[in-house]
Amino acid sequence: MRNSNRQWILRKRPQGEIKAGDLELVEQPIPVPGPGQILVRTLYLSLDPTNRIWMSDMEQYMPPVQLGDVMRGGSIGVVEQSNNPDYAPGDIVNTFAGWQEYVVLDGAQKLAKGVPLPAYMSVLGATGATAYFGLLDLGKPKPGETVVVSAACGAVGSIVGQIAKLKGCRTVGIAGSDEKCRHAVEKLSFDACINYKTEDMRDALKRECPNGIDIDFENAGGEILDAVMDNLAMKARIVLCGMISQYNADTPPPGPSLTNILMKRARIEGFIIIDYLPRFGEFIAEMAPWVAAGKIKYDTTIVPGIENALGALDMLFTGKNTGKLLIQVSEEP
Amino acid sequence: MRNSNRQWILRKRPQGEIKAGDLELVEQPIPVPGPGQILVRTLYLSLDPTNRIWMSDMEQYMPPVQLGDVMRGGSIGVVEQSNNPDYAPGDIVNTFAGWQEYVVLDGAQKLAKGVPLPAYMSVLGATGATAYFGLLDLGKPKPGETVVVSAACGAVGSIVGQIAKLKGCRTVGIAGSDEKCRHAVEKLSFDACINYKTEDMRDALKRECPNGIDIDFENAGGEILDAVMDNLAMKARIVLCGMISQYNADTPPPGPSLTNILMKRARIEGFIIIDYLPRFGEFIAEMAPWVAAGKIKYDTTIVPGIENALGALDMLFTGKNTGKLLIQVSEEP
Repeated sequence: MRNSNRQWILRKRPQGEIKAGDLELVEQPIPVPGPGQILVRTLYLSLDPTNRIWMSDMEQYMPPVQLGDVMRGGSIGVVEQSNNPDYAPGDIVNTFAGWQEYVVLDGAQKLAKGVPLPAYMSVLGATGATAYFGLLDLGKPKPGETVVVSAACGAVGSIVGQIAKLKGCRTVGIAGSDEKCRHAVEKLSFDACINYKTEDMRDALKRECPNGIDIDFENAGGEILDAVMDNLAMKARIVLCGMISQYNADTPPPGPSLTNILMKRARIEGFIIIDYLPRFGEFIAEMAPWVAAGKIKYDTTIVPGIENALGALDMLFTGKNTGKLLIQVSEEP
Repeated sequence: MRNSNRQWILRKRPQGEIKAGDLELVEQPIPVPGPGQILVRTLYLSLDPTNRIWMSDMEQYMPPVQLGDVMRGGSIGVVEQSNNPDYAPGDIVNTFAGWQEYVVLDGAQKLAKGVPLPAYMSVLGATGATAYFGLLDLGKPKPGETVVVSAACGAVGSIVGQIAKLKGCRTVGIAGSDEKCRHAVEKLSFDACINYKTEDMRDALKRECPNGIDIDFENAGGEILDAVMDNLAMKARIVLCGMISQYNADTPPPGPSLTNILMKRARIEGFIIIDYLPRFGEFIAEMAPWVAAGKIKYDTTIVPGIENALGALDMLFTGKNTGKLLIQVSEEP
């Protein structure tokens, strides 16, 4: 056991890309659990595009992280000490500890053992639930429909594509390299994948979606979304899950022309997974068997060491990760 | 009875604002009905923002009007001659005759007498149905919610506001003059109305919608929609009925940033009334009693003479009409 608790503290709100000095890695004493409390050692920290939103003070879906506070983030950990009869050392728990090595809590959701722990941070966690509810609840796919997924090899996109395929849809991914596109088709069962860095997106979408796009699961925004808008089918649904291309902008750039939303009687709907937490059981009931049967595959990019969290976050914005990006903060017990 | 049939022919696709020469008024012989056909004299012609869309060759929800063809438009008329046993001279019928004085048809929907004929072109016609289905089917207003309506004194907006009020909502109109705003509040029962030409829209919407905008019935687009996007309530619904501020643009300008759609889990949905024609009965069943009871009021701006159609259309883009804009093509029988 370490004898200090390293934490990333938000010092400045980033302007544009995150710069050294916006967050600072500090060492604090390991906190001591009081009566009824538990001390949890962080095992895995989730890095997500939304981290960048939380660092800003734009209007958002949760309060921004305050300057001087530990950076927010999803995590799982192992109980190290327990003054709570419901928990024993060695229990694996779902925490929201943020970017730090230890946290004291009154309690936390226990996670069943026997599942690879990174799965709780990806396909069986908030990431998988984002894919599941966004696609099924908002997108409402019907067999034979065409589903386009940007960031197709990303944590969410990779799961969206596979669920859509299981639901009988034609799936067209969008990714940033030929290698990712191959991965999307060969491992993630996409019917086709477009490299947005080398192809004309409008032409490529027209070619791969000859009947138009019925569902767009949007993670990118910007020019990719513009091209999607020009290829919508009638009554198309755009599930607006994220717009990572815009998170480093100081003022939000304009969006796509809405003309085709009108002409195609289409829909754009924003989606944030926290609204679906009460329905998590539905998701696990359908997803866990798919994962166990190998029908849904998932990738993880695991970077060791909390000191690397800030540098690793940048991988999301430059497309360097495949699947879910995690920091392994400490060794699994 | 005239001895010629005046028609407006589309000669050129307008670039920007419509110019003289884009359409030409020509005289043709009055057509002769064949066996089983009827000759209908146009009484009222509907002028709508969508006329401008039909003149362009942008991708749209119906084929554009072809160069050399009679300009398209909704209309009602009176049967002058009938070779069809189902129709008698004097019958009032709903036609889609376009911008011309006479048309020969195989048949047309008959309209009951006893209703002022302009009502069939406004509150009890496609205009009223647009307001009704757009607000109720897409907006799904709940009592106590706040509904914002752009072009609040326009043909559609004026009806939307009154239906929303009947459904128990707070209604906030947006219009282009203090006089229109007074009219919106005093006659059309809006709770408040904002003059977008003199007020800062963001501030004014914040003031009049202290709990945020639950439903935006969007007729304007552009800067008005931008300001709406900054004042959305959680789970807001934007009913995208039209974007008249953009119809004279040669290429569609960008739309609003979608950031708040994401953050507020809001929805933008496009809407075109032709999809609802099979449900027209539902609309009439609820709307006709409201109109008869004086619970829904409607305004019409009636310009006489088909030769004035092109000039009158411009009133829609400069905000000179109040309520439904019609051309009276010939005298009622």
